[in-house]
Amino acid sequence: MIDRARTDATHDPSLRSWVDSANAPQADFPVQNLPFGTFRREYEERPRVGIAIGDQVLDCVEAARAGCFDTLDPSVRDALHGWSLNGLMALGREDARAVRHVASSMLAAGGAAAEAAREIADRILVPVSQASLLVPAEIGDYTDFYASIHHATRVGALFRPDSPLPPNYKWIPIGYHGRASSIVASGAPVRRPSGQVRTGSEGSPVVGPSAGLDYEIELAIWVGGENALGAPVPIAAAADRVWGLGLLNDWSARDIQGWEYQPLGPFLSKSFVTTVSPWVVTTDALEPFRAPLAARPEGDPAPLPYLDDASDRARGAFAVTLEVSILTATMRAAGLAPHRLSVADASTLYWTPAQMIAHHTSNGCNLRPGDLLGSGTASGPGDESRGCLLEIARRGAAPVVLPGGEARTFLQDGDEVIMRGWCERDGARRIGFGECRGTVRAGG
Amino acid sequence: MIDRARTDATHDPSLRSWVDSANAPQADFPVQNLPFGTFRREYEERPRVGIAIGDQVLDCVEAARAGCFDTLDPSVRDALHGWSLNGLMALGREDARAVRHVASSMLAAGGAAAEAAREIADRILVPVSQASLLVPAEIGDYTDFYASIHHATRVGALFRPDSPLPPNYKWIPIGYHGRASSIVASGAPVRRPSGQVRTGSEGSPVVGPSAGLDYEIELAIWVGGENALGAPVPIAAAADRVWGLGLLNDWSARDIQGWEYQPLGPFLSKSFVTTVSPWVVTTDALEPFRAPLAARPEGDPAPLPYLDDASDRARGAFAVTLEVSILTATMRAAGLAPHRLSVADASTLYWTPAQMIAHHTSNGCNLRPGDLLGSGTASGPGDESRGCLLEIARRGAAPVVLPGGEARTFLQDGDEVIMRGWCERDGARRIGFGECRGTVRAGG
Repeated sequence: MIDRARTDATHDPSLRSWVDSANAPQADFPVQNLPFGTFRREYEERPRVGIAIGDQVLDCVEAARAGCFDTLDPSVRDALHGWSLNGLMALGREDARAVRHVASSMLAAGGAAAEAAREIADRILVPVSQASLLVPAEIGDYTDFYASIHHATRVGALFRPDSPLPPNYKWIPIGYHGRASSIVASGAPVRRPSGQVRTGSEGSPVVGPSAGLDYEIELAIWVGGENALGAPVPIAAAADRVWGLGLLNDWSARDIQGWEYQPLGPFLSKSFVTTVSPWVVTTDALEPFRAPLAARPEGDPAPLPYLDDASDRARGAFAVTLEVSILTATMRAAGLAPHRLSVADASTLYWTPAQMIAHHTSNGCNLRPGDLLGSGTASGPGDESRGCLLEIARRGAAPVVLPGGEARTFLQDGDEVIMRGWCERDGARRIGFGECRGTVRAGG
Repeated sequence: MIDRARTDATHDPSLRSWVDSANAPQADFPVQNLPFGTFRREYEERPRVGIAIGDQVLDCVEAARAGCFDTLDPSVRDALHGWSLNGLMALGREDARAVRHVASSMLAAGGAAAEAAREIADRILVPVSQASLLVPAEIGDYTDFYASIHHATRVGALFRPDSPLPPNYKWIPIGYHGRASSIVASGAPVRRPSGQVRTGSEGSPVVGPSAGLDYEIELAIWVGGENALGAPVPIAAAADRVWGLGLLNDWSARDIQGWEYQPLGPFLSKSFVTTVSPWVVTTDALEPFRAPLAARPEGDPAPLPYLDDASDRARGAFAVTLEVSILTATMRAAGLAPHRLSVADASTLYWTPAQMIAHHTSNGCNLRPGDLLGSGTASGPGDESRGCLLEIARRGAAPVVLPGGEARTFLQDGDEVIMRGWCERDGARRIGFGECRGTVRAGG
């Protein structure tokens, strides 16, 4: 359902890059993608803005110094020199699009800009193996939503079989405030948290390492632009506040959550760490992979007017395939490959990112550039698309058996959780999100 | 119960300042207080660090330029040049104490430092009437607790008469993540939020301006120092992470909260705005007003070991008197004075700030300098100490009658809520927190 008016030459599937690794069929970062991130060069403290291309990072600071971005407005070039993506995320959509277009002309094979860039490739390209990839923005606030009705229904059924969905589910894109300080980039260690747990309904809780450590695969939604405090963003303008998408692992300690979360919601069961993928895939790059929002089932209420926009319903979903794999210490030692736990399609979410933003700001709350939204566990309708172990192992009742014979109800120390995302369809170049990884370590 | 070893010459009640307004008996900011904040001078964009003294602000940038802080370590002087208090809050406690000692010697009458400062008073003092007082720190994360058992019990009884207190209340300092972007300084307007509300158990929710707008008086707890992600702060070290205290109004839309808060907690019912007082009263200034934590009633469990420290129990509470007044538009037009709605003592909270910090970090969560904790509505045991309208008017059942004859169950447009805090006891100079004000405006 590609809207031709919204795609442009940067999406042309026949484009190839002079960076050879970008042309491999399964490459996450072909020249049609060009996701933004921040990284450190070896032996440097200062983060730099970069763009992924194949197995290389375009160093935007060096490229700007070399004059590659001279056609851009000075304020845009300044943003490329920032320590984070916040400066770029504060720009208007047209400015961000202009950066992408210049990068496309530099990195696609052919043309004067590409020739000039290729001559200074040693200066402006850094092998990703020599770059430390960072959390891409300084996150002012992080909000986690609960937008998969499939996840909400399955988890609700485990705890409240008679009424799995809360009564507000089909009216409100449910969300809650999360913790910004403990957000880390892919690859950072995940320490098993300790906390209070009480399993029965009587007696003292006990304190110790969580025995219910889980992952949740989510879309990371990076916010661009800013609305003033007191100025809600209308639904028709909300899609433009989505700067780009990534992957997010909302690590969760289910046993801590069960004891703490009433009456004010999850707290320490989530705030010990949240992992994000380092590359932000722009909504411009995702344009060929927009999908109509799935029709609400017969009997479901229509969204209230402040959440309802025909254009958003028609274009607001993103057909991102989301995959989770696990590699345990035992599997690693045995030379086994990671085992796929789930695969889902993010276009099955019940709410669009624009609806989340319209709702979030409907009370006047200000969203700032670099703010992060999580979609909530992005589970789909099928059994293969259960986006966390709580769903897969049915709260411990149905352990997963892994290659090599191990079983899991929750994560064990040494387990690595590997999330990947990608978009593909006929007539478009496949693009990827890269990885969002984390390995569980024993708590201290 | 003053611990003489922990007070020093800066607390001497006989000290007077050469700034006359600081010597008035009811002055909030005598020379024994010296709270820190940030402000803008007229016609200037750049915020500056300041210290309140009487009706003046000591401009720390000008004072540093004039050499007044030359005895301090260069890193400490650098922090005084910051745009916020974050730099000072990142320092160790001894460094922060050293700043306070120098300011005391400059502003107390007598002595060479005071003589030198007085000679340049025009340069280093700004009348508070000519200063714009700001949110004192860049708040990385804001967490709101629920530490008053009296508030939790009364509110619980309104909604769950059979079991007012959640089963985890006496074990966990319950908290949840709040929104940092919408925190404003005293005096900023408070727009009535709109949102979804469903009053019955059936039918469509309606969207419109909240009809249940409330305030909540809380202690603002400003965090100093930093713990690494994965490194819990032991209870014995947690008190040192409390940099200072202020006042906080956790404005709440009760009708929005009732519909949205299950299952993940309050969200838009809180995030439209939160007001803080601009002056941070240091824990050093509060030392004469520490109080033993109230003994837990017979039958209550002892705190779990990670929340239990004899020294914290003996010294951890702060005897701050917290007062809320209201001035409606009608009262203002009639020339009436603000009407006191409640007065409470913060030492009646069930949990200490150190217990909140030990719990918050027990899962490895990192707290950064400038992070903000709210105590939760600081209600006391008596009827006069109900810290929000929900408690006072019993969820609408018992409207408050105001001077002039108006009644309130929740706030009306034009209502100004005025919070004040102070500490006083025999043998010590009274110190104050200043005000935390906000006037409700109609939503847009």
